Amino acid sequence: SPLSDSIPLFVHFFELLSKSLRMESTISIIEPTSPYYNIVQHGDNPDITKERLTASFNLYNMRKFVYENEYKLKRRQEILEYVQSQSDFDDPVDPSFLNRDQIVDRATRKCTAMMKHVDCVDISDYFDEGPLYQFLAIGRELHCLSLHYGMFLPTIQNQSDEEQLEEWLPKAASMSILGTFAQTELGHGSNLSKLETTATYDPTTQEFVLHTPTKSAAKWWPGGLGKSASHASVMAQLHTNGENKGPHLFMVPLRDEATHSPLPGITVGDIGPKLGINANDNGFLIFDHYRIPRRNMFMKYSKVEPNGTYTAPPHAKLGFGAMVLVRSLMIRDQASQLGSAAVIAIRYSAVRRQGEINEGEGEVQILDYRTQQYRLLPQLARSFAFLFAAYEVKALYYEVTKQIRDSANTELLAELHALSCGLKAVITWDVAQGIEQSRLSCGGHGYSRASAFPDIYTYSVGGCTYEGENIVMLLQVARFLMKIAQEVRAGSPNLAEIAEYIGRKDSGTSRVKSWKTCSDEDIVHDFEVVARKMIFSSFDRLQSLLKTMKKKEAWNACSIDLCKAARMHVKTYLVKNFFARVRTCEDPASREVMHTLAKLYAFDLISGASGHFMKGGYLSEPQADQIQSDIYEMLRTLRPEAVALADSWDFSDLELRSVLGRRDGNVYPALLEWAKQSPLNKTEVLPTFGKYLEPMMKECRSHL
Amino acid sequence: SPLSDSIPLFVHFFELLSKSLRMESTISIIEPTSPYYNIVQHGDNPDITKERLTASFNLYNMRKFVYENEYKLKRRQEILEYVQSQSDFDDPVDPSFLNRDQIVDRATRKCTAMMKHVDCVDISDYFDEGPLYQFLAIGRELHCLSLHYGMFLPTIQNQSDEEQLEEWLPKAASMSILGTFAQTELGHGSNLSKLETTATYDPTTQEFVLHTPTKSAAKWWPGGLGKSASHASVMAQLHTNGENKGPHLFMVPLRDEATHSPLPGITVGDIGPKLGINANDNGFLIFDHYRIPRRNMFMKYSKVEPNGTYTAPPHAKLGFGAMVLVRSLMIRDQASQLGSAAVIAIRYSAVRRQGEINEGEGEVQILDYRTQQYRLLPQLARSFAFLFAAYEVKALYYEVTKQIRDSANTELLAELHALSCGLKAVITWDVAQGIEQSRLSCGGHGYSRASAFPDIYTYSVGGCTYEGENIVMLLQVARFLMKIAQEVRAGSPNLAEIAEYIGRKDSGTSRVKSWKTCSDEDIVHDFEVVARKMIFSSFDRLQSLLKTMKKKEAWNACSIDLCKAARMHVKTYLVKNFFARVRTCEDPASREVMHTLAKLYAFDLISGASGHFMKGGYLSEPQADQIQSDIYEMLRTLRPEAVALADSWDFSDLELRSVLGRRDGNVYPALLEWAKQSPLNKTEVLPTFGKYLEPMMKECRSHL
Repeated sequence: SPLSDSIPLFVHFFELLSKSLRMESTISIIEPTSPYYNIVQHGDNPDITKERLTASFNLYNMRKFVYENEYKLKRRQEILEYVQSQSDFDDPVDPSFLNRDQIVDRATRKCTAMMKHVDCVDISDYFDEGPLYQFLAIGRELHCLSLHYGMFLPTIQNQSDEEQLEEWLPKAASMSILGTFAQTELGHGSNLSKLETTATYDPTTQEFVLHTPTKSAAKWWPGGLGKSASHASVMAQLHTNGENKGPHLFMVPLRDEATHSPLPGITVGDIGPKLGINANDNGFLIFDHYRIPRRNMFMKYSKVEPNGTYTAPPHAKLGFGAMVLVRSLMIRDQASQLGSAAVIAIRYSAVRRQGEINEGEGEVQILDYRTQQYRLLPQLARSFAFLFAAYEVKALYYEVTKQIRDSANTELLAELHALSCGLKAVITWDVAQGIEQSRLSCGGHGYSRASAFPDIYTYSVGGCTYEGENIVMLLQVARFLMKIAQEVRAGSPNLAEIAEYIGRKDSGTSRVKSWKTCSDEDIVHDFEVVARKMIFSSFDRLQSLLKTMKKKEAWNACSIDLCKAARMHVKTYLVKNFFARVRTCEDPASREVMHTLAKLYAFDLISGASGHFMKGGYLSEPQADQIQSDIYEMLRTLRPEAVALADSWDFSDLELRSVLGRRDGNVYPALLEWAKQSPLNKTEVLPTFGKYLEPMMKECRSHL
Repeated sequence: SPLSDSIPLFVHFFELLSKSLRMESTISIIEPTSPYYNIVQHGDNPDITKERLTASFNLYNMRKFVYENEYKLKRRQEILEYVQSQSDFDDPVDPSFLNRDQIVDRATRKCTAMMKHVDCVDISDYFDEGPLYQFLAIGRELHCLSLHYGMFLPTIQNQSDEEQLEEWLPKAASMSILGTFAQTELGHGSNLSKLETTATYDPTTQEFVLHTPTKSAAKWWPGGLGKSASHASVMAQLHTNGENKGPHLFMVPLRDEATHSPLPGITVGDIGPKLGINANDNGFLIFDHYRIPRRNMFMKYSKVEPNGTYTAPPHAKLGFGAMVLVRSLMIRDQASQLGSAAVIAIRYSAVRRQGEINEGEGEVQILDYRTQQYRLLPQLARSFAFLFAAYEVKALYYEVTKQIRDSANTELLAELHALSCGLKAVITWDVAQGIEQSRLSCGGHGYSRASAFPDIYTYSVGGCTYEGENIVMLLQVARFLMKIAQEVRAGSPNLAEIAEYIGRKDSGTSRVKSWKTCSDEDIVHDFEVVARKMIFSSFDRLQSLLKTMKKKEAWNACSIDLCKAARMHVKTYLVKNFFARVRTCEDPASREVMHTLAKLYAFDLISGASGHFMKGGYLSEPQADQIQSDIYEMLRTLRPEAVALADSWDFSDLELRSVLGRRDGNVYPALLEWAKQSPLNKTEVLPTFGKYLEPMMKECRSHL
């Protein structure tokens, strides 16, 4: 299938890049000399040290588990030390204080520095080392090369014929040209077939004429398009010999090689500020009868002959390997963002003292408030649930790649697609909510950019929309589930592992009991029963609607229920996978604490979906009450582990970039130091005084 | 009570201000010449016109209902026209493109202009005209005079003795001095008793010595403190004759009258950028043995004699009238913010076409998708529920003020306090969620600042934290509810109207039926039963915990349930009030549509809290299913009314400040025009090209 073709090539690109085509570098991997276990130091806030010393598990063992193995943990430290050692990555001013021109400048400087020092990471490890390197160097941002890597290069690899590949890949992989991927238009995103940009073949000159026929046809959003990219792969409706052949891709030079000025016929610019991700120059692009040679159409699958004759692609669809990879990478990224938010809030809640619980005993750490624990510990649990799901997606991605490469076996691909869509939709939303809960739990200080929460939120929440809007994604999962339900009803299921439970018979009775006595299997069982019920209930409703409605009308009419079923399916996967991962933890003390966290995650989900669980009396009233009181008991049990569990994420201060979440807990002096850098503090008296306030006050005084 | 004292004085201030002490102005109220009903115009997007023409009700009648009466509606138009007519309020550049220095400059310019033109509004109408004026002039922002009005002046009024009042009020009310209110410190917000700033009386010089003994004692957050305020009312621990008398208020000059430079002993500055509200210079303040005269202590309630003798206040607490007012105003403000978000998203969903529902019938308006309706119509319903609650709070506030003034009757004050705390906590959170849902429903364009969603969200969500963190507020409501539960159990309830239902007996059976057949009373009845159950279940749990725990420990242990009970109590109020308000609508067509919206609001709440409603079999399974399918049916019924219902909010384009939410629906050309103003587009080639990208690309090419 075309989807499968793209994956080995995409992987191949990283090998290619890491072997030959990059800038000179004198860097070798630094041997770590400092110990990994350096979390308690002299001068730390005693409140946070106390927390670290009273945890029941060994932090190093827990971190090894969290990061899969010792090697990964060691590499995190090495990369951190390398980035810290290079002045190219310094920030003379905290980026929170920069205006937009300045953050664009900073990110561009940093990403060219990343290229220079690229040898310090294994660039083929794009799930772990690559993203870590970028976060340490730049922070939570995209930059002008993000789409060059993420979309432009894969497009060249997946869509070029051999001659084109030979011409374009070396230039692009070496950064001799900088590209982006221009598909979305002002008026169209998710419905590609209705894109309006046209590419009309002119056989007299053997050129395509690219044109933007309406304002809504302006290309809109591509990262790096506004000011940085010299080239773009452009999706446009191909017209030849008077016929529209649908959307096709074209390689389009945008700017003059020497001057970088837009070429005649091209109008291009930045689309303006956004909620976040402002270091990126997302752009617009308008064509005015702009001509490119015939051979600038990507011709791996479709072709246009010199005389305009069109050859259709052997497959109906273009390759989407890059999208599957990007969504898979997002799971990992989003897990880290929620992890960061939870870590910051938990550490701050350990050093913030406010109010007394028992009179005369002094102000308590706010982490001692039950409401604070209830806000934060489930977020920490979620962050690990999502991280462990990301590991499974990564493993599945590698497995799919291997199967396709070794034996052209594409069996697992639909599963990976459904899994990555579903996880993307559920996780991005839960992450956004969790970040805001963490932020709000820090009171006023959470609202300051010193906390890093504003940056974490505005960056992460974009994930709900890009790479497939969440509702659209959930409906894709629902489509997958309805297909399975149909197969099950037809009695011929050949189910992917992830959906195997849908084919099982309902057992009838719920098995969840007290958290101390019920097994992982009991909990997973109940989730599976409830998810299965929701899937079949949507399926039956859909079938019944189909008797009186057209197919898509019926689909629309029950789309809300379909989304709910898809969400429960994904959450069932997350619970199951969390438990499975915990069982692999070798250190008993770490395993026990992480197991409680996994149960908290599951029980909190049941509590939030109690309407679904109690339907038809499946979960009884006493069980629901038990779950609620168990949650409170687990919060109490986890309270002394909270800071050490947060430390298990192994975030350095450079990665967190948060005054509230500092390792040492010395928050207040650091807030003061941070604020003093505010540009408004450069002068004691702002110009606004002389311009506006002084004249007003003077006049007022004269009236007194 | 001290709480009551402050309210008439606070009201009195507005009378004072509007009578005499303000800048010269030549402005009189403009007679409106344009019709109010101007929502359909030539050149509008036909998709949005179609929606407006097919609604079942008369927009003018609906707007009269929404804004309480014709006069209010007329005033909205007059104020709009006035602001648009004055060049002082112009914005040469869209504020989204300004950096922080520039937005501070803009807001300061605008707020001095607001003072100049203050005659165009009835400044004593601080629930409606005042906020509208500010939104039209500045937008969603605070400015350097926000706390001068909101806190500094009320403090002078409420805390000064007569001599002090005579000295300070004219200066402050006339803007001869600009003040703020400095209470919160780096280390303490909600626990006032532990504030660390000290004011030590020195009888030898008859001065107070203000001092910041630790870094965590730095004053932090006060609006306008950083660069604008010349004075602050400062909360500090009063020490005299070797004893700490607890927190007291002091009038403190901060800056030199002539130069505006900080006075010796004062370190003051901006606390840096925040998630939003960046036009305000929230500040920090550090005292180094800073001396003020004895008479700068606010002495209405407590006194320090020249020899240091302290006289305790006649009441234990200081006045909180201003806080009650500010929270009451917030309800109104937050309702408008959610209204804006819903209006923008609904209008955009009417002009955005994407995907086909029935093949060959062309792309549909995305408002035709059931999932989109489910995302947006409940938000619109909520926005009206909150607006109508704001009207009740306003009426109650005026009633309380009147009772206190006329007969020193403070009966209703506790009710107003509990109501405003509870509504503040529930509404700010629902508003934040609703804004984000609205934003996400607009796909990528919602992420652009052109949509206005980023500004609406970052401004509104601050409300979850300021004027009392939401969890703290909910626990205050819970305290009020537990007191009532105790009275009910003791058989001697004398209940405030808002809590009257808590004293009733459970009826046992649920009354909710199909939305078309069940009455408002049936729905309210079920909410009251469920809220009552939750209140008494928390009460019983608390009593049982008190057998083995200290009072505050027990409170902490069941605080999560207490918050849930408080939320349900507030939501019950919101539902009841929405129905009651709808019944007052005189126009039958408007009333019918608004009634359906109110039922959607109620059913959506039941659906979201189905676990609580189904507890003990109260709401049956078939009832719950009915509610779910009724929601879908109501969405279908409301679909053709959606745009006109959005229009009922009567937001002008100037008030919305959103390219996506434009009245005329011509979104795409306007987005292009907007983006062209981005500062990055000032030059075709950014300096980053020459500095970073060109050298990298050149070197790369040389290697090829």
